[in-house]
This record gives sequence, structure tokens and C-alpha cells, in this order.
Amino acid sequence: MASKQSEAVKKHWATTRQAASWPEDEKPDTESWGNLTAEPRGVDYVETEAAGLPAMWVTPKGAAQDRVLLFMHGGGFISGSMYSHRKMLGHLAKAIGARALVFDYHLAPEHRHPTQVNEAAAVYGWLLEQGVSAEHVAFVGDSAGGGMAITVQLRARELGLPLPGAAMLISPWVDMEVAGETYETNRDSDAFFTTDVVKALVDLFTDDPRHPLANALYGDLAGLGPIYIQMGGDEVLLADGHALEARAAKAGVEVRLDVFPEMQHTFQMAAGRAPEADDAIRRMGDWGRPRLGL
Amino acid sequence: MASKQSEAVKKHWATTRQAASWPEDEKPDTESWGNLTAEPRGVDYVETEAAGLPAMWVTPKGAAQDRVLLFMHGGGFISGSMYSHRKMLGHLAKAIGARALVFDYHLAPEHRHPTQVNEAAAVYGWLLEQGVSAEHVAFVGDSAGGGMAITVQLRARELGLPLPGAAMLISPWVDMEVAGETYETNRDSDAFFTTDVVKALVDLFTDDPRHPLANALYGDLAGLGPIYIQMGGDEVLLADGHALEARAAKAGVEVRLDVFPEMQHTFQMAAGRAPEADDAIRRMGDWGRPRLGL
Repeated sequence: MASKQSEAVKKHWATTRQAASWPEDEKPDTESWGNLTAEPRGVDYVETEAAGLPAMWVTPKGAAQDRVLLFMHGGGFISGSMYSHRKMLGHLAKAIGARALVFDYHLAPEHRHPTQVNEAAAVYGWLLEQGVSAEHVAFVGDSAGGGMAITVQLRARELGLPLPGAAMLISPWVDMEVAGETYETNRDSDAFFTTDVVKALVDLFTDDPRHPLANALYGDLAGLGPIYIQMGGDEVLLADGHALEARAAKAGVEVRLDVFPEMQHTFQMAAGRAPEADDAIRRMGDWGRPRLGL
Repeated sequence: MASKQSEAVKKHWATTRQAASWPEDEKPDTESWGNLTAEPRGVDYVETEAAGLPAMWVTPKGAAQDRVLLFMHGGGFISGSMYSHRKMLGHLAKAIGARALVFDYHLAPEHRHPTQVNEAAAVYGWLLEQGVSAEHVAFVGDSAGGGMAITVQLRARELGLPLPGAAMLISPWVDMEVAGETYETNRDSDAFFTTDVVKALVDLFTDDPRHPLANALYGDLAGLGPIYIQMGGDEVLLADGHALEARAAKAGVEVRLDVFPEMQHTFQMAAGRAPEADDAIRRMGDWGRPRLGL
């Protein structure tokens, strides 16, 4: 049974679903997503500018300075920010023992694909220019940002940049055709996402849902570094994780998928509160440290 | 009429009142207080150690480095932390154009008075040792910390330290005898505090409710720098503000009290969301800047 603390994640998504019909000035702002996360403590947050974008260093005390998690935040490409996710990222950075960089890419619908993948690749290029070695960088992302953690690698390769050492994906949303079978089988267990919701997000994001830089399932993944995927067992996007795992394995990429029973989309946002989230963060730490040479 | 956003403060306090009877593992943690506050943006948070205590620099981009708000957080001496208050403090530091230091003093009931006032005075001494001039420091505090913003000055004077340039008090709780008439007249409008609640807090804090280092109304305030007090018109502690204003004025101290109609205790926690909170923060900025020579 899901812990009481993870039930808070479900409640967050259920409220988000209800709020779709609320008056504009009563809707919870997207920062409220971050309220799910306990303070990681012992983590510094310092804003900077990366490739011309607002960004933030998230640095645990004692973290390796030369190992970096480059974080691509979720929010369906229309919401989320470096503020909504910084505490969850703080937990993960502590578990890895590295510092992390999170940035604000421009959001849809005002800015459509490929704005996001291009901006993220530019931030990665900026990070390498700071003297960090590519093999000491892990791309990390959740939801829409989880998909970016793959597509930005493909874009970086086009730009001639070296690939990062690893990627960690939290409930990645990759299938822009919204075709996964778990849209049906998890329809009653997912507290927020539905076929209609995700199709609407796709429409806001791109008119080319099979473009390999918008949909990692159409990308050539051969040659990418190891990938670790975490999915909630109750989310409709579960099939995205399985499809990505299959595609990566077929391309010869080292890939691992962990499914957490009864968990919602991005349940890791309850880090520091829910045992399932803490377990997930710990697993990412254990998986990520050796792959960053820590 | 109070704004919808300030109603969230009232709801927070009402929930806190209800939660007193909830099972321990369902109670909201005290960090949730900070969920009322919007991200101030453009503010860095860097943890440090001050006089042996956990502390955090809250530094707006472009802030004067040699002007410091020393913040004493509220929470009835039994709760609250540098985490619960950092965003509200970020808003205030931006309004002043100075950096701020917030620290975790030890909490009651495990640590009773005078632990808190002594620790805060030690942090102030540490701050002066860093080379900051006393006249460029403002003591700021809310609720229990609002009282400390006065009593710590009295303790600092005992220690032979120079006094800070100013003090800004947000819903200060000073009357440890719990005798203010607004406990009665605002009984129906205050969403959380009652005579019984505050008497219970006093018992956890001290057995000497008239000690001048526990109760600023018994302190010799002559010679203190200017004091600015903000109170919510609907809070039972409103009389604390009036009593402190009267005592300071009688001692020849420059003092100003602003009462915000229909506002709850520490309504400034809704900074960045509620117009009343933003107005209050702006007034503190306008009042504080010239007094810190900014």
C-alpha cells in the first residue's frame, strides 16, 4: 500500500485535475508542486545565467564540484521552473554527492519545439565550457524533462558535443503519439493524466510528434551512455518508460527500468517525506555515483 | 475585505488549529508555513554556521553586502526554522536591498529561556566579528522572533555589544503574561491563537514571564534604535504591538506601529501572493532603507 506521504502526491495531482475548471485566480500556482518536497537541508541555491537563461546551482555541502547533474524540469513544457523542482533536485544531488544545475527554458505554447531542446543543448554546451568533463555530467529530468534528458543528447550529438556520462529519467514523457497501452490500463489509477490531457499538451508543444528531437522513441539511441528510468506503477505514462527501455536496449544502450508499485507520476517529488520517494532517490544515488566516477 | 490570497493565511492558521487534534503522522510539518510564500526569485540561499549554529545567508542579487538583516524566526519558540521563513525573508531583503542572515536557535521545550536570547545574541556578536557595522544591521523577527528582536538587543547591551541600527517586528509576541485585551476582542477573528494556546507556549518557554530578557514589556528600552512594528488587525496579539509601541515611546525610542485591517498573525508570509503582504513588505523596505543608510 502506498504510504500516507505518497498519498499527498496523488492528492496533488487530483487537485491539479480539479483546478482545471477553477477560476484563473484560484488555481494553485505551479510552484505548489514543490510543496510536496521536504527541505533537503545542507544544500545551497545560487542563481546564475547559463547560455543566456536563468539558472540555479544546487550544491550540497561537501559535493564534488567537478561532477554535475544537469536537470531538465518537468511540467508538460507549459509549466514548472527551477523553483518548483529545486528541493527534489537537492535531495538527488545529495544522494549522488554532486552539484546540480537547473535552468528555465522557454515554455509552450508561446515557445514551441524545438525551442526547449535547443536551449537545453545550449546550456549543456555552456556547462562544458565551464570546464566540466562530459563523462562527469549526468542528464536528469522528470516528465517532459525526462524525455529531454534523451532528446537533448541527440541534439548535442548533432552539435558535435561529447555525450554525458549517464542519464536518469523520472517518469519520462517521451511518446508524443500518446499511444501507450497504460493510458487505458492505468486510466483509473492515474490521478491526473489522461489521453485527452496529454494530447492537448502535445498540440501545445509540436505539430511533428514523430520528430526524433521531440520524441525519443524515434531517435537513434545507439552510442548513448547508460540510462536509468523510474516510473510509477499507477501512471498512464508507464508504457512510455517500457517503450524507451526497449528502444534503448535494442540500440545496445545500457538501460535499467524500475517500476514503483502504486506510485503516481513523479512521486519522487515527495522526497524527504515519503519512503517510496526516498527509496527512489537512494536508488538513483547508488546507480549514478559509480557512473560519474564517484 | 481581505484578499483571496490573504485568506490562505487564515486557512493555514485554521488548519494548524485543527491539526492539534490530528494523529502525529498526519500533522502538517512546520515547513508548510513557508508554502504560503511565493518564490522571491533572484535570491541566493547559502548555508553557513554562525556562533556554532546552523545559519543561512539570504542574498538578493545586487544587494548591499555590508548591510544585514539579522532575522529571528517565529514559531512560538517550539517550531519554525531558517527553512520555513527563508522565502519571506528573501522578499524583505529584496525590498531593503540588503542581505539577510537567518539561523536555527534551539527550541523549547527541550531548550528553555534564556537559551534563545543568548544564542541570538551570540549570532549577533559573530555577525559583528565578520566586519559588519552595528548601525548597518537591522534586527528583524516575526511572532516569537519579533519579541526577540527587542530582547536580544537588551542581552547584547549586557554583553557590551553596540546596538543595531533599527528593528522591524512582524506580529511580535512580547507579552508573556498573556494579558492583552485583544485576546478577548479578537477572539472570534484570530484563526489560531487563543489565551490557552499562548499560555501553553509560555509554560514551555519560561517560568519567569516577567523577566526582561523574556518579555520586552519589562525591559529598559531607553537608547534602542528605531523600531517599526506591523500587526494584523484580526490577531489576538494585536495588543502586544500596542503595548510595545507605548513602552518604546515612553522610553524615548522612535517607534512606528502599522495595523493592517482584517489581517491575521504574520500575514506577511503570503509575500509575493497577497497584496496586503506585499504592501507590508514594501513599507518595511521604505522604512528600513534610510535607517540602514541605503
